[in-house]
Amino acid sequence: MSGSVLLAELIDALRCLPGVGAKSAQRMAFHVLERDRPGALRLADRLAAAVERIGNCRRCRSFSENELCSFCANPLRDKSVLCVVESPVDQSAVETATGFRGLYFVLLGRLSPLDGMGPRELGLDLLAERLRGGEVAELIVATNPTVEGEATAHLLSQLARDAGVRATRLAHGVPLGGELEFIDRGTLAHAFGSRQTLT
Amino acid sequence: MSGSVLLAELIDALRCLPGVGAKSAQRMAFHVLERDRPGALRLADRLAAAVERIGNCRRCRSFSENELCSFCANPLRDKSVLCVVESPVDQSAVETATGFRGLYFVLLGRLSPLDGMGPRELGLDLLAERLRGGEVAELIVATNPTVEGEATAHLLSQLARDAGVRATRLAHGVPLGGELEFIDRGTLAHAFGSRQTLT
Repeated sequence: MSGSVLLAELIDALRCLPGVGAKSAQRMAFHVLERDRPGALRLADRLAAAVERIGNCRRCRSFSENELCSFCANPLRDKSVLCVVESPVDQSAVETATGFRGLYFVLLGRLSPLDGMGPRELGLDLLAERLRGGEVAELIVATNPTVEGEATAHLLSQLARDAGVRATRLAHGVPLGGELEFIDRGTLAHAFGSRQTLT
Repeated sequence: MSGSVLLAELIDALRCLPGVGAKSAQRMAFHVLERDRPGALRLADRLAAAVERIGNCRRCRSFSENELCSFCANPLRDKSVLCVVESPVDQSAVETATGFRGLYFVLLGRLSPLDGMGPRELGLDLLAERLRGGEVAELIVATNPTVEGEATAHLLSQLARDAGVRATRLAHGVPLGGELEFIDRGTLAHAFGSRQTLT
């Protein structure tokens, strides 16, 4: 180590970033100090601003610095389709990859009683109220295909049924470009069972 | 994207870190906002403190928040051996890997006239003065084995000769654990030419 206390503290603090270990943190610290001090100051400023001012949208619970996020506030989005995702990252993935023009609802977690994540923590009362509001015609369940995500999906479909709303979920199967040889057995069995008629 | 301006700015600012592209920056931003806001605030604080208060040691030019870095200020280090490195990262690598107990001199670059890096930018006047001081008995040249690093090493050895100081350099050859089959031709030729008697 270089022997500077501030440098050691910076290296340690950088490790809060995902995927950054001792070695990368050191490389990052030296890099910004040697070559990009303005960039580092800007990053410090943006980090503080984001942490202090980004909260959650009142309607969909996604990240937003305003009461309503830009999706919920946008009158051009289709209010009749609601896509439920576990996290803002999933929301961003759906938004980038698909042509979806409806609205989102972000659970900020998945059903996991052991971690204290129950229906209340996932904001399901807010969601149920919205479904009963009559504006939503279809609830697209886009939770992750994990055990907890599936349990969450089950609960969501019940919620939709209670409110008389049609629930759909993402199709599961062989990924495009995937080779059968390398696909896990569960996915392959599911894709085989759900085979579709060629048209 | 999530539609939050502050979030987009944070993602953009994170890209000043080396090895962080659009995708990792997004993952980092979502991660800290969802799970580690205190860590992010701490990082913002440490970044700003490091940029504002870390300068260069008056004697060795390494990073330091004080006039003298902890190496130069340490009376237990051996003042008779001076190791010259290109950057603080190299200094840290030497310090971590070897049992070196002498002092360092950091060039903060390498000889590269096209990039405006001449003897003055590398602080060679400071180094020459120190060599003439009579305290240094050996100058260990630990520049990188690149073309520019070799040119720098050449200049450093001249400087040492002028001051009547013995100059040494790191040994080059086959890395420990390396396999001959995969070693580049230049290194292998050098290692072959510099072969040593088995004892």
